[in-house]
Amino acid sequence: MPGNTFGHIFRVTTWGESHGRAVGCVVDGCPAGLEISENAIQKELDRRKPGGRLASKRKESDRVEILSGVFNGKSLGTPVSMLIWNRDVDSRPYEEIKDLFRPGHADFTYWAKFGIRDWRGGGRASGRETAARVAAGAIAKLILSRFGVEIGGFAREIGGIACSTDGMSFEEIVDRAEKSDIRCPDEEAARLMEEKILEARRDGDSVGGVVEVIVKNPPAGLGEPVFGKLDAHLAFAVMGVPAVKGVEIGAGFKASRMRGSEHNDPIVIKNGRIGFESNNAGGILGGISNGENIIVKAAIKPTPSISKPQRTVNYRKMVEEEIIVKGRHDPCIVPRAVPVVEAMVSLVIVDAMMMQGLIPRFL
Amino acid sequence: MPGNTFGHIFRVTTWGESHGRAVGCVVDGCPAGLEISENAIQKELDRRKPGGRLASKRKESDRVEILSGVFNGKSLGTPVSMLIWNRDVDSRPYEEIKDLFRPGHADFTYWAKFGIRDWRGGGRASGRETAARVAAGAIAKLILSRFGVEIGGFAREIGGIACSTDGMSFEEIVDRAEKSDIRCPDEEAARLMEEKILEARRDGDSVGGVVEVIVKNPPAGLGEPVFGKLDAHLAFAVMGVPAVKGVEIGAGFKASRMRGSEHNDPIVIKNGRIGFESNNAGGILGGISNGENIIVKAAIKPTPSISKPQRTVNYRKMVEEEIIVKGRHDPCIVPRAVPVVEAMVSLVIVDAMMMQGLIPRFL
Amino acid sequence: MPGNTFGHIFRVTTWGESHGRAVGCVVDGCPAGLEISENAIQKELDRRKPGGRLASKRKESDRVEILSGVFNGKSLGTPVSMLIWNRDVDSRPYEEIKDLFRPGHADFTYWAKFGIRDWRGGGRASGRETAARVAAGAIAKLILSRFGVEIGGFAREIGGIACSTDGMSFEEIVDRAEKSDIRCPDEEAARLMEEKILEARRDGDSVGGVVEVIVKNPPAGLGEPVFGKLDAHLAFAVMGVPAVKGVEIGAGFKASRMRGSEHNDPIVIKNGRIGFESNNAGGILGGISNGENIIVKAAIKPTPSISKPQRTVNYRKMVEEEIIVKGRHDPCIVPRAVPVVEAMVSLVIVDAMMMQGLIPRFL
Amino acid sequence: MPGNTFGHIFRVTTWGESHGRAVGCVVDGCPAGLEISENAIQKELDRRKPGGRLASKRKESDRVEILSGVFNGKSLGTPVSMLIWNRDVDSRPYEEIKDLFRPGHADFTYWAKFGIRDWRGGGRASGRETAARVAAGAIAKLILSRFGVEIGGFAREIGGIACSTDGMSFEEIVDRAEKSDIRCPDEEAARLMEEKILEARRDGDSVGGVVEVIVKNPPAGLGEPVFGKLDAHLAFAVMGVPAVKGVEIGAGFKASRMRGSEHNDPIVIKNGRIGFESNNAGGILGGISNGENIIVKAAIKPTPSISKPQRTVNYRKMVEEEIIVKGRHDPCIVPRAVPVVEAMVSLVIVDAMMMQGLIPRFL
Repeated sequence: MPGNTFGHIFRVTTWGESHGRAVGCVVDGCPAGLEISENAIQKELDRRKPGGRLASKRKESDRVEILSGVFNGKSLGTPVSMLIWNRDVDSRPYEEIKDLFRPGHADFTYWAKFGIRDWRGGGRASGRETAARVAAGAIAKLILSRFGVEIGGFAREIGGIACSTDGMSFEEIVDRAEKSDIRCPDEEAARLMEEKILEARRDGDSVGGVVEVIVKNPPAGLGEPVFGKLDAHLAFAVMGVPAVKGVEIGAGFKASRMRGSEHNDPIVIKNGRIGFESNNAGGILGGISNGENIIVKAAIKPTPSISKPQRTVNYRKMVEEEIIVKGRHDPCIVPRAVPVVEAMVSLVIVDAMMMQGLIPRFL
Repeated sequence: MPGNTFGHIFRVTTWGESHGRAVGCVVDGCPAGLEISENAIQKELDRRKPGGRLASKRKESDRVEILSGVFNGKSLGTPVSMLIWNRDVDSRPYEEIKDLFRPGHADFTYWAKFGIRDWRGGGRASGRETAARVAAGAIAKLILSRFGVEIGGFAREIGGIACSTDGMSFEEIVDRAEKSDIRCPDEEAARLMEEKILEARRDGDSVGGVVEVIVKNPPAGLGEPVFGKLDAHLAFAVMGVPAVKGVEIGAGFKASRMRGSEHNDPIVIKNGRIGFESNNAGGILGGISNGENIIVKAAIKPTPSISKPQRTVNYRKMVEEEIIVKGRHDPCIVPRAVPVVEAMVSLVIVDAMMMQGLIPRFL
Repeated sequence: MPGNTFGHIFRVTTWGESHGRAVGCVVDGCPAGLEISENAIQKELDRRKPGGRLASKRKESDRVEILSGVFNGKSLGTPVSMLIWNRDVDSRPYEEIKDLFRPGHADFTYWAKFGIRDWRGGGRASGRETAARVAAGAIAKLILSRFGVEIGGFAREIGGIACSTDGMSFEEIVDRAEKSDIRCPDEEAARLMEEKILEARRDGDSVGGVVEVIVKNPPAGLGEPVFGKLDAHLAFAVMGVPAVKGVEIGAGFKASRMRGSEHNDPIVIKNGRIGFESNNAGGILGGISNGENIIVKAAIKPTPSISKPQRTVNYRKMVEEEIIVKGRHDPCIVPRAVPVVEAMVSLVIVDAMMMQGLIPRFL
Repeated sequence: MPGNTFGHIFRVTTWGESHGRAVGCVVDGCPAGLEISENAIQKELDRRKPGGRLASKRKESDRVEILSGVFNGKSLGTPVSMLIWNRDVDSRPYEEIKDLFRPGHADFTYWAKFGIRDWRGGGRASGRETAARVAAGAIAKLILSRFGVEIGGFAREIGGIACSTDGMSFEEIVDRAEKSDIRCPDEEAARLMEEKILEARRDGDSVGGVVEVIVKNPPAGLGEPVFGKLDAHLAFAVMGVPAVKGVEIGAGFKASRMRGSEHNDPIVIKNGRIGFESNNAGGILGGISNGENIIVKAAIKPTPSISKPQRTVNYRKMVEEEIIVKGRHDPCIVPRAVPVVEAMVSLVIVDAMMMQGLIPRFL
């Protein structure tokens, strides 16, 4: 099946090319009676939008318009169509290199798959497409918050610098991250990360990092074994975010180096209910949520657009050439990837809660 | 949607509990005219089955029977139903602990989700379910090999010991791994890994590791952006394998610590075609295969069943108790997980090739 | 997507050829905690099985075996796998005509689609496949009856003879139909219908008819506009039953000859709730159930297997030949089609109730 | 799953309310390299749009805008987003009756399902939603015509007056229908139908009819047994069109009154290929196309909006009241339903051809 729809009961379809007329999405399966405003959506979009000291210079207000599915401020249970016009489009830097495949980008693979490609700004493969995901995720978050579930993310690592959140509550992590230019809740680490980013920019290069997203207070029982496990759906959602090369749940790869006695989380009684003393599982056992916070990590590769010369192929002439990628790019995409990964996690959790019968058709 | 079906055009539905009458699967969407024999399926099942020096002592011949979809040795294009009877079932060790949730297992979460659970041998959450996946994957491999695509896996790491495959061809890796008791192609590392496993067993404990699977010679153009990316489907497939806590494509988490100039694979002309000089991308760019080998890694947690005493809860009495898990278990599941991860990867690749129109409805 | 799975949340996958080893199904998404016994399933299967004065002479006990998903008499929420062995298989009459395409059958089209076919007894296209549907439908009925919804069907018309149910309650219709050899609740009409069937058999010919199924006491609010309407799903389900050539909801084609003032059902207050005075809509408005009984009719074509000589083609010699179809056939399939159409309707209603959040994950 | 997406490989998601800001659709899975222009889409939309002697007086230019997925006049293989602004919106006549459920409409059922409804012009349940289907269907037709498959429809019956197409070729039927105000290719019948419509309008009433759609020159082999039959998908698609109460394939309900010897289409050799002498099957056997033209009929109920007083309920006061429905309505929706049913049939055929591997990913 074509890949532009996500989810089963809460379903999102996105569309749009980076330098086309607009990007947008259709959210189907939103419960009726939910208060939805363009402002609430906009708040999330503003977290993702370009600009700032360390990001791309493309100027997009990313103003969302709701075209359907909301009547008198409430969702109707019918599809919510949202649209963001592309305003600050400058395709010239791309025109010069339209016969060259940019290394690390999807230029070659789109061409191999479709036999044609929109070379303007990466077309459909541009990070700009994620604006539509964030808009959809904003609705998911509105629903989740009605049920006491919160989603928050931050930059766990950038340019090889990891941060510590030891002793911080969910709220502290999230608040500090939002106050940081690069969404890192640990001030000391943040300073070092910024240095890495600026250094890379100076060198015409880029760095990557790790985004971590926490689901606070999820109900136990989410996820559909044996293929449709909650962690499998999270992995699907997060690996599908541009630039992600790895996904971990809980202890992740570290778990593979632990012993069973060390990794198994003891089961205990907490506040009169069954719970877990530690959380190496990241809130998921056997593919089903266990009621503890869900922890997801995503490895983000360094931005492929760099101004250093690189080797590539001119496919019309079928010769190897050197390429220098211009355009307006982020030397590190991690901070802006945070709300995108959050959005994808939100979509998964809402969908799983609906599947489990925890969200009614009208609120 | 319930989670027991995998895939879109090549679709597999598995069923069965560990100590029920049987486990099995239905493969829908298999092209017609494919030569399928029980022997070919059995060969793959034998790679997963229990027994051997370092594995569970459950004695299952795991003999597969094909009940439909094959006529005169060839697939009909109709569903292929396969069944494996459960023979060596001993539920007594489980009866004693049926009111206790085993740490690291899905006992608690199945109960939280379904309000009922089959406590015999882990029920549906048992690793035994993966026999059905391997049977389905065997058919996928038969199809792939008709199109020159091979899938091979091995133990990349066990108990913290990593192996090296530098300089080995795909065929060497696979051959050596199959000759090794623990599916490790590097003899020196294999020796150390075995020690780690035996040590853990002596301690009543367990170890984990990393499975790596390589897709050799995949066509470019597989994968459906933007949500249905090839790597997203691989992550979904592999994260859904029991005990997996992390998935990487290509350089994976290492990519997050590289610079763009280091990570981007130069695009070159190889044998008159466009290719890549290195393979940090793991064969996938923008969610679409680029024609290089596809590299997937899975972090396998240590087997949760250990004989060391652990803390847990008796849910009928709602008190904390100590549990000692008996039964027949593998101190390290990594070697037996290799054919399972291979099977899941095979399902994804066949499905993606069908979606791309590369496999006809009859062969 | 391949076509052997039905439903979204309550999902059924069937498999098996008429003269293969067995037929069966896997039911995924069944709520946990439902009492399921082989006897309850068998009761429905016995209503479909061959035998009797007016039906095929194939002797099949159609004994169902449950292989998974049920533990201590209750569903686990995991897949319920059911199997019916094929016993009384006689493929000889088919061997003689295996190079000829039987008119009115799927012989030619399976060959055109798959390039290969199982010519024994119609293979996958045989009516025998519907046994698996009935087994799955039996579970759906068990769930529905827990929520006060009943499904009943009967032969509305056979060989051009229509019956009347004026003044009969749902229970009367169903009881009388079950007592009749041909599932017709109107004794006088039943007598005439039988004559038509016997007459056709004497002539080496066959007749068709109309099956009507009633859903008693459905909740309002089922169905997903705009494509996934309840009537659209019913049409999909029922048109997919072998031999069905038309589907009607409520007044059906008669509605197309009515005026609006005549067809619109007046909305009234009944027992303090909003209801409808008449039921031309057949319980569905705008694709959503309105709380009145749902009425579905299916046009069943005359059995294509007739012993009269017919013109066809020998595809190996590519010449026109005459064919006389032997084997054991029903001169009229309508009575045995009743439980099949009921089963399909049951699957749709359960699925729609789950989608609407009216059936919990565990009962 | 929510119901606003149609299709599997060629997938259409529609959105929009009648008196909201716009209606639109997203077409995913369109092959790359197809020439698509707004003009080609507009041509189909103009066939559906209101106006004319016998239709609603709402004035909508129904001007389509393509927002994505097309670059330099060719499809990219990415989602094609299309939008039609709502211009001539007048919600006043609906405001007066917003607490009354209009008989024959979805007012009550949307309220029962969603607990909220957009009462302006029928909201999402309005026929206006079908504009988006027609836009999507227009792309499907462009693809089909590349493969020699044509889709044409006409009014087979209106107000009880049936027309004859005996002796007319597909092209004649289609051409004559398009020249007729009510899409009836038989001039004599058309005159009588018009009288019926005008008579009904004079009486403040409405009439229904039957739409017939023909697929010319389809390949054999389309459709996925056993649930995903081609006729089942057609029934799903067509029953989901507003106001449809019945669907027939080929001889339809007439088949239920025929004998087998009469209904079975003789198999013959035509032009050196296997074909059928007659077409009672309507081009489909065993759920798979047989290469003959596919014939689908839809029973359209009389327009529910009539100006005659009707009985209904005021749901806020919970009392029975009389309602007189104003607004701008068609006394007979059949002529405008023709392009809508054609669109739905086109979507099914394209999807089935893709599933059968007959349409490449790039043209």
